[in-house]
Amino acid sequence: MNERLSCQIEFIREMDRLKTIFRQTYLMDASRHENDAEHSWHITLMAWLLEEHVDEKKLNLLRVMKMLLIHDVVEIDAGDTFAYDTTGQEGKFERERLAAERIFGLLPPDQFDEMMELWLEFEQRETMESRYAAAMDRIQPLLHNYYTQGKAWQAHGVTSDRVLARIRFLEAELPDVYTLVSGLIHDAVDKGYLLP
Amino acid sequence: MNERLSCQIEFIREMDRLKTIFRQTYLMDASRHENDAEHSWHITLMAWLLEEHVDEKKLNLLRVMKMLLIHDVVEIDAGDTFAYDTTGQEGKFERERLAAERIFGLLPPDQFDEMMELWLEFEQRETMESRYAAAMDRIQPLLHNYYTQGKAWQAHGVTSDRVLARIRFLEAELPDVYTLVSGLIHDAVDKGYLLP
Repeated sequence: MNERLSCQIEFIREMDRLKTIFRQTYLMDASRHENDAEHSWHITLMAWLLEEHVDEKKLNLLRVMKMLLIHDVVEIDAGDTFAYDTTGQEGKFERERLAAERIFGLLPPDQFDEMMELWLEFEQRETMESRYAAAMDRIQPLLHNYYTQGKAWQAHGVTSDRVLARIRFLEAELPDVYTLVSGLIHDAVDKGYLLP
Repeated sequence: MNERLSCQIEFIREMDRLKTIFRQTYLMDASRHENDAEHSWHITLMAWLLEEHVDEKKLNLLRVMKMLLIHDVVEIDAGDTFAYDTTGQEGKFERERLAAERIFGLLPPDQFDEMMELWLEFEQRETMESRYAAAMDRIQPLLHNYYTQGKAWQAHGVTSDRVLARIRFLEAELPDVYTLVSGLIHDAVDKGYLLP
């Protein structure tokens, strides 16, 4: 029996639990909350689609996609923390780091190292790949909020200055996307989806 | 306003519907059916994890991952066809081809071409990348069935010879994985999860 393959199958089995971790965001038809697995699929696809809006010659898209596929698996243990929940942000990194140790620890050591490195890179937002990945992770829930007339924003009394603050970094790195997305935020305020 | 970006955002919005297309497969905790978006995430991640079991020097993993991210989006229009539903297989390709035309048609022409080419490559199973991608798409529901004690197999009276026939091609291309997976099928018969 192949020892490495057994570990990999066990990890694949564990990954299934990400489908039961729900986010504050609603599906665009507003029928239910979105889970982490489908969110991860959506933004991995977005990274491929929107690649031309960054300097794609320099970007390692495969690295971005790997990062996005696993960026939320720590929530299997640590749960989803809403982006605008200030109290929940306390101790979040430490909770998630422990989760990463356990979950990636199911894999053979070289794959543990690769996943841990990618997850830390995503969290630190220092490389081009991780900042582009983070952009996808912020744009997608914003689109979901806009197209559900601000359902999750309203549930938590979120204001436009906080939404704008989270996407400000796009202005330098993805200027076209920033123009579109900040336009949606202003429009959301005008339409009453989002508090000013 | 950036015309290409508007098309891309419209496509991203359309993609959300994949989260509402349910498969026959159950989550591994048997709590509910799985949807196409979370299935696509799971097998894209599997393709990365199991790469070493094929000739990874020759494999273009980025191409495989792109293929798996979009392999089921045609089901937004065409619906899910259960693998063992012989009647449903009739006319399936034509229904799905029309769906691909409409859905990928939301994108700018160069991105339409790229997605259509990848989708057709996946359907035709002639390249190394598409056969490896197909392997992921067959192994994952089999694991789900095994770990739910054959829930979807039993709902449809599926027999082991049909399950084995669908994974036979793995024997040549992913021998380690074939050994493990065919072992699970025999074990499933022994345990009464699957009809002989």
